[in-house]
Amino acid sequence: MQWTRKDLLGLYDLSAEEITLILDTAEEFKKVSQRRVKKVPALRGKTVVNFFVEPSTRTRVSFELAEQRLSADVVNMQAQASSLLKGETLLDTVRNIEALQVDLVVMRHSAPGAQNFIARNLGCGVVNAGDGAHEHPTQALLDIFTMREKLGSVKGLQVAIVGDILHSRVARSNIWGLLKLGAQVTVAGPATLVPREFESIGVRVCHNLDEAIRNADVVNLLRIQHERQTADFFPSIGEYSKFFGIRPDTMKKLKPETLIMHPGPINRGVELAGEVADGKNSVILEQVTNGLAIRMAVLYLVAGCVQK
Amino acid sequence: MQWTRKDLLGLYDLSAEEITLILDTAEEFKKVSQRRVKKVPALRGKTVVNFFVEPSTRTRVSFELAEQRLSADVVNMQAQASSLLKGETLLDTVRNIEALQVDLVVMRHSAPGAQNFIARNLGCGVVNAGDGAHEHPTQALLDIFTMREKLGSVKGLQVAIVGDILHSRVARSNIWGLLKLGAQVTVAGPATLVPREFESIGVRVCHNLDEAIRNADVVNLLRIQHERQTADFFPSIGEYSKFFGIRPDTMKKLKPETLIMHPGPINRGVELAGEVADGKNSVILEQVTNGLAIRMAVLYLVAGCVQK
Amino acid sequence: MQWTRKDLLGLYDLSAEEITLILDTAEEFKKVSQRRVKKVPALRGKTVVNFFVEPSTRTRVSFELAEQRLSADVVNMQAQASSLLKGETLLDTVRNIEALQVDLVVMRHSAPGAQNFIARNLGCGVVNAGDGAHEHPTQALLDIFTMREKLGSVKGLQVAIVGDILHSRVARSNIWGLLKLGAQVTVAGPATLVPREFESIGVRVCHNLDEAIRNADVVNLLRIQHERQTADFFPSIGEYSKFFGIRPDTMKKLKPETLIMHPGPINRGVELAGEVADGKNSVILEQVTNGLAIRMAVLYLVAGCVQK
Repeated sequence: MQWTRKDLLGLYDLSAEEITLILDTAEEFKKVSQRRVKKVPALRGKTVVNFFVEPSTRTRVSFELAEQRLSADVVNMQAQASSLLKGETLLDTVRNIEALQVDLVVMRHSAPGAQNFIARNLGCGVVNAGDGAHEHPTQALLDIFTMREKLGSVKGLQVAIVGDILHSRVARSNIWGLLKLGAQVTVAGPATLVPREFESIGVRVCHNLDEAIRNADVVNLLRIQHERQTADFFPSIGEYSKFFGIRPDTMKKLKPETLIMHPGPINRGVELAGEVADGKNSVILEQVTNGLAIRMAVLYLVAGCVQK
Repeated sequence: MQWTRKDLLGLYDLSAEEITLILDTAEEFKKVSQRRVKKVPALRGKTVVNFFVEPSTRTRVSFELAEQRLSADVVNMQAQASSLLKGETLLDTVRNIEALQVDLVVMRHSAPGAQNFIARNLGCGVVNAGDGAHEHPTQALLDIFTMREKLGSVKGLQVAIVGDILHSRVARSNIWGLLKLGAQVTVAGPATLVPREFESIGVRVCHNLDEAIRNADVVNLLRIQHERQTADFFPSIGEYSKFFGIRPDTMKKLKPETLIMHPGPINRGVELAGEVADGKNSVILEQVTNGLAIRMAVLYLVAGCVQK
Repeated sequence: MQWTRKDLLGLYDLSAEEITLILDTAEEFKKVSQRRVKKVPALRGKTVVNFFVEPSTRTRVSFELAEQRLSADVVNMQAQASSLLKGETLLDTVRNIEALQVDLVVMRHSAPGAQNFIARNLGCGVVNAGDGAHEHPTQALLDIFTMREKLGSVKGLQVAIVGDILHSRVARSNIWGLLKLGAQVTVAGPATLVPREFESIGVRVCHNLDEAIRNADVVNLLRIQHERQTADFFPSIGEYSKFFGIRPDTMKKLKPETLIMHPGPINRGVELAGEVADGKNSVILEQVTNGLAIRMAVLYLVAGCVQK
C-alpha cells in the first residue's frame, strides 16, 4: 500500500494497513540512528516548524532530532513567545507559518482537535504531537512498535494500560491503534479515572490491578499527575501507588516475559518502583529510542504527500 | 549598481537605487522558496546570530528560515536569558558575539538607534529587525516588494497608512522607502496618533478615513496596540474601530484593485474585519511570503560586504 | 599521546599531557574559524545536546557555534522547560537523552559533581559546561590557551587570579590546569572570599592587590556577583572595587606586557575600569575567540572516544 495523507492527526482515522506501513517504515529508519553518520537526505531543503503551544521538552527534542536526521531545516516556535499573546487567532498564526513556505508543522496544543481544525485549513502537512486529552499518535505508534519488535506481533496480545485513562491522550491513541491491529486492551485504575463507559469502545475496564495485569503481555503505565489529586479524582498519591503502583512483588504475578512500558517522565515510587523501571522487563528506554524512528517515519511519509 | 553596506539599519539612509537592488535581488530569491529543495549555498560556513532583546516570534522565525535557506549556521539569543541581566553593557555583549567570529547579527531592540550604535562599533554586519519606534526596514521592504509585484511599479502610487503612526517603526520605514521610490503617502488615524507634524517629512496627514483612502492604490493597516488605549491616545478600541477600521462596506469606497496590507499580527474586528483580511483585495499572507525573500536578499547583500 | 576519555569533567583529573593535547588541537581548530567557510565535517551525523539546567547564554552560544562548525546536529534543552519540573530524576532525564542515540551531552548544572555522576552512568560523552563552584574546564582551558598563545609557554608564568575565589569554578579549574603546566598561581581578594586554606593546594594567598599582582605575567579578574554582597562576604561593591578593582593607575604597577584577562561578563567600574578592559593589555575578547577553538577541540577529542 501507499501512504496518501498529508497529516498525521490520530490513530482513530488510520487503517491497520496504514499503521503497519508506519511501523515498517520506522524499522528502516531505526537503522539510520545506529550508523556512524546518523543522517539521510530524505527531507533536505524541506522546512519543519515545531509549534508547541503547550510546553514539552521531551517530545520536542525527539521530533527535532528526527527532523535533523532527515536533513530538514528546523525552526522551533513556542506559544508563550508567540503572537497568540497579542490576540491573533490560532488559524492566522499557522497561516503565517504556512506562508513562509513551510512543508510540515509539528504541533502540540492543549485543546483537543486543534490540529484537526488546522490541518483542514492548511496546505502544508500537520503532525499531531499531542492535543489535549484527544490523541498523541506518535507516542502510541512507538509503544506499538516496541511491542511488535519485542513480541513479534501485536495481534492477539493482551495489553493492560494502567493509570489516569480519562485524561490521557496516550491511552486513547494506544487503544485505537491496538484494537485495529487485533490486540485485546484492558484499562485499569480508580473508578474516577477509568469510567465504565470505556467498555463501549471495545476495551475491558478493571478497577483492580491484579485482575487487570493477570495474563498481560504488556503493562503500559501512565504518569500520575499530581494536579489530578487536588481535583478529587483520588485521595492521595500514596493511596494511588498502594493500589495501582507496580512494585517488585507485583512482578511475581506477571508472566516472566511481560513488558513494562511507560511514556515518561517516570514518577519513581508512584506508578512504578525504581527496581521495576530499571528491571529486566522494562523497555522504557527502548521506547524512547523507537520514538525517534517512528517520528522519522511519520515525517517522511506525510512530507511525501504535501503538495508544493 | 553594487551593494556596499555591511549593515541594513533603515530605509532613511538608502538611495532609491539601493532599495531597488534589494527588491530585484529578492525577486531572484523568491524563486528559491518555490523549489523542491528550498536552499542555496550562498552563506554556507557563515554564522548569523539572531539577537532579540525584544521578543518577536514572527520576525525571528522569518529571519531564521531565510538564514537556513541560505545555508548559514544560525544561533538564537534572547535578551531575557542573556548577560544583559547580569549588568553587562549592550556593546560588550555584541562585542562578545563578534569575537565568536560571527558574520552577521540580526538584532531587535526596544531603544531607537541601538542598532546604529552597535553597527558603528562592530566589524560584522548588523541587520535591524526593529528598533523601538525608529525603523523596521525589512518589513517596509517586503511591503514595497509586494506593491511592486502586484501593481508593477511604486512610482506614482497612492499609499495610505492607517493607524498608530506616531509609535510605528513600520510606518516610518515605509514612509522613507515609498517617498524615495516616488510614491505619494497619506498617513491617517486619530489626531493623537497622527500628529500634523508628519507633513514636514513630505506625507499627507488625514484624520478622516474616507478622505485618506479615496483613490488609494494601497491601504496599509497598522496593528492597534491595546496598551495605547490606557495611555489616553484614544477613548476605546471600539471607537477606534468604528472610525478607522476597514469593514466590507468600506471596501466599496475603494478602487476595485486596491491592495489591503497589514504587517500582522491582525486584530480581526479592530483594524479590519475578518472578511476584509480574507477577501480578494488582501495580500497579507503574500506579504509574509515576500518577507522571506526580502530577508534572504538583505542577508545575502550585506554578508558580501563584511570583511573577514 | 592519544586522547582516551569520553568525557571532559574537569582539569583536576587531567595530566599535563592531556591538557597540552587539547591546547594543540585547539590551535588547529582556531584556523577553521578564520576561513571563509568556517566549517569542517568532523562531527557530521553526530548529535550533541546542550543541556543547561542553569541558564547561560554566553557559554551555550559558544558551544553551539563550536558544534555547528564541526557539522554536528545540535539540540538545545533548557531546564526550566524540562521534565525536571515534573518530578523526574536527573539521571532519568539524561538517560532519555542518551536513548535518543545522542553522542555528546554538554551540560551545565548548579550542583557540584552533577556531571561526574551523570558521566559514570551514561555511555555517551559528557562535557562539563560548569557545575556549581566545582569546575568549568573549557573556560580555564581557553584562559590557558590565551596565555600560551600570547606568552609562549605556561611553565614558570606568574598568574594572579583576583576576586571571589571561594565560589568560583573558573578559579578552581584555572588553578588545577595552571599548576599542572608549571605556572605559579596567586589568588587574591578579601579574606572572606579568599580563605587561607587555598594554600594547601599549592597556590599563594594574598589579601592585598598590589602584593598579588607585583611581577604577575597574567592578572585574571573574576566577576563580582552582586548577590554575594548581601550574604556578608564584603561590605559594598564600592569598597570591593576600591581595594581590588583594576584602574588605569593600577596598570602602572604591572610589568608592561602583563595580560589582563576576564571570563566575562564584565562589570565595568567594579572589577576593572572600562579603560583597562579596552586597553592594550586586555585580551578579554581574544579569550572569547579562543573559547570557540577550545570547545571545538574538546568536542572533537571526546567524540572520538564515544562507543557507538
